[in-house]
Amino acid sequence: MSENTALDLASIRAAHARIARYINRTPVVTSSTLDASAGASLFFKCENLQKVGAFKARGATNAVFSLADAEAARGVVTHSSGNHGAALARAAQLRGIPAYIVMPSNAPRTKQDAVKRYGGTVIFCEPTQASREETAQRVLQDTGAVLIHAFDDMRVMAGQGTTAVELLESVGDLDVILCPVGGGGLLSGVAVAAKALAPDIKVIAVEPAGADDTAQSFKIGRFVPGSPPKSIADGLLTTLCERTFAEIRRHVDDVVTVSEAGIVQSMRSLWQVLKLVVEPSGAVAYAAIVENRVEIAGKKVGVILSGGNLDLDKLPWQ
Amino acid sequence: MSENTALDLASIRAAHARIARYINRTPVVTSSTLDASAGASLFFKCENLQKVGAFKARGATNAVFSLADAEAARGVVTHSSGNHGAALARAAQLRGIPAYIVMPSNAPRTKQDAVKRYGGTVIFCEPTQASREETAQRVLQDTGAVLIHAFDDMRVMAGQGTTAVELLESVGDLDVILCPVGGGGLLSGVAVAAKALAPDIKVIAVEPAGADDTAQSFKIGRFVPGSPPKSIADGLLTTLCERTFAEIRRHVDDVVTVSEAGIVQSMRSLWQVLKLVVEPSGAVAYAAIVENRVEIAGKKVGVILSGGNLDLDKLPWQ
Repeated sequence: MSENTALDLASIRAAHARIARYINRTPVVTSSTLDASAGASLFFKCENLQKVGAFKARGATNAVFSLADAEAARGVVTHSSGNHGAALARAAQLRGIPAYIVMPSNAPRTKQDAVKRYGGTVIFCEPTQASREETAQRVLQDTGAVLIHAFDDMRVMAGQGTTAVELLESVGDLDVILCPVGGGGLLSGVAVAAKALAPDIKVIAVEPAGADDTAQSFKIGRFVPGSPPKSIADGLLTTLCERTFAEIRRHVDDVVTVSEAGIVQSMRSLWQVLKLVVEPSGAVAYAAIVENRVEIAGKKVGVILSGGNLDLDKLPWQ
Repeated sequence: MSENTALDLASIRAAHARIARYINRTPVVTSSTLDASAGASLFFKCENLQKVGAFKARGATNAVFSLADAEAARGVVTHSSGNHGAALARAAQLRGIPAYIVMPSNAPRTKQDAVKRYGGTVIFCEPTQASREETAQRVLQDTGAVLIHAFDDMRVMAGQGTTAVELLESVGDLDVILCPVGGGGLLSGVAVAAKALAPDIKVIAVEPAGADDTAQSFKIGRFVPGSPPKSIADGLLTTLCERTFAEIRRHVDDVVTVSEAGIVQSMRSLWQVLKLVVEPSGAVAYAAIVENRVEIAGKKVGVILSGGNLDLDKLPWQ
């Protein structure tokens, strides 16, 4: 699979076959309590229970195992302050190749440790987008490693799309899928897979109101980076890229936004009722239900809980 | 199934057939991180993801659906400050019969609300064992309802044993099962089922050192209620009864104890790594691994995470 393969059901199915042995087939959980409160049947896809604690394991693993042997031998590089770095390090370790993860010097210690635990090499940069990209380019030139971007990469997008394949294999007749959006890798893959498997399904993206570049871009029909994002949902503070926006514009039915208070309340409900540790970004899709931003009465709704990595010493409701 | 049926694999399998449609077949999760730290292969049975958030749904449902129609019609009664009350109320609601739950007047509001949410009637008593039992007897006489004790009941014990049936269906060749013990209902059922299905398996009970009546009784070979228990593991503050002790003495290989600090550390690890909300009692079995109280090097070990109900505003590591 090349980095420029089209994103379609075939490439997503190929990704699934490639990564199945390396990732968790995460459970889909239900709750009569949350169903009663929503007036709908909810099916939560638990990517917080995925390897490295987030869906990111899917795309990174697909990218790494898509490389030809000669290409792979020189390793992979990315810039990431979050879960993609750990996911890429893990995938590289599984393949037995080097991983170079460029991180801002102020990245939380836990994120650094996660990369190192999987044998990745952490390379620090200044905490700016420009420094991240420059540093990654330098590593790439020095090592000959292949750049695997966190979302602006068809192999990564196809890997993330396997989330929807599994969800629809578990619950075939969903009416709606709610999916969080940051850079758009997960949303692109999920939308393409879902529409191919179930053409009548509605795919609705959910975004923090404080990081609403997708909602803005979707409304005006072209990609606008938007103002600097601000949200407790730290996994969604990235903006789209042209490639993910093109897929989103084509395959996503609507983009809705949720408040910070709604994210926190939703996160707490998921912990309390589902007994699942979900990070703020992971609770954003459910927040659209809690805040009545979607019409789902009587419907069957898939809700993607995208991850569960956070600092347990600082819970936002305390 | 009568309250005095023998506890054996047949009665546990019958329980499983009876309750399967009403309970969750909970997932078994694994973690390479926790395996590396333990030097063993760990298989966590997630009863925190069970209906009502604890394994108690199994036994209560089996008891309620074991009743003959005429007997069931008058309802069920129990005294419980914890999860059994909610589990019994839910099972009664599923069968369409009344449930009377006797609770101490100082029971946490969340526990009262859980019973009410499932349509149960809460009846308050003084916070003493004598008052609990007297009040339950009075309700029993007034209503003709059937008493379903939280653990001193073969139907309940058989229902809890279905946890081990599922665990061994998922992972057939376990060497060891670690199971928490309070009143001994779960432990009895698990030990009987596990030994019948896999005679060479070791079943090891784990108990907080501050509530060690099982360890004491096991050591001297007869049931001693022990001193008033004290532990953060509030689900394990009950003592055994003669009936559960008889099964434990016959089928359990060892009883080990863990410290309060070990319970908290284990709980936090399970949240951080497995992304699962596990209550203190639910983390006790894993604490035996964290505190090196069991010899498991290189073995395949089932660990029962018994529940996930707790107050999210007061986390013990904060």
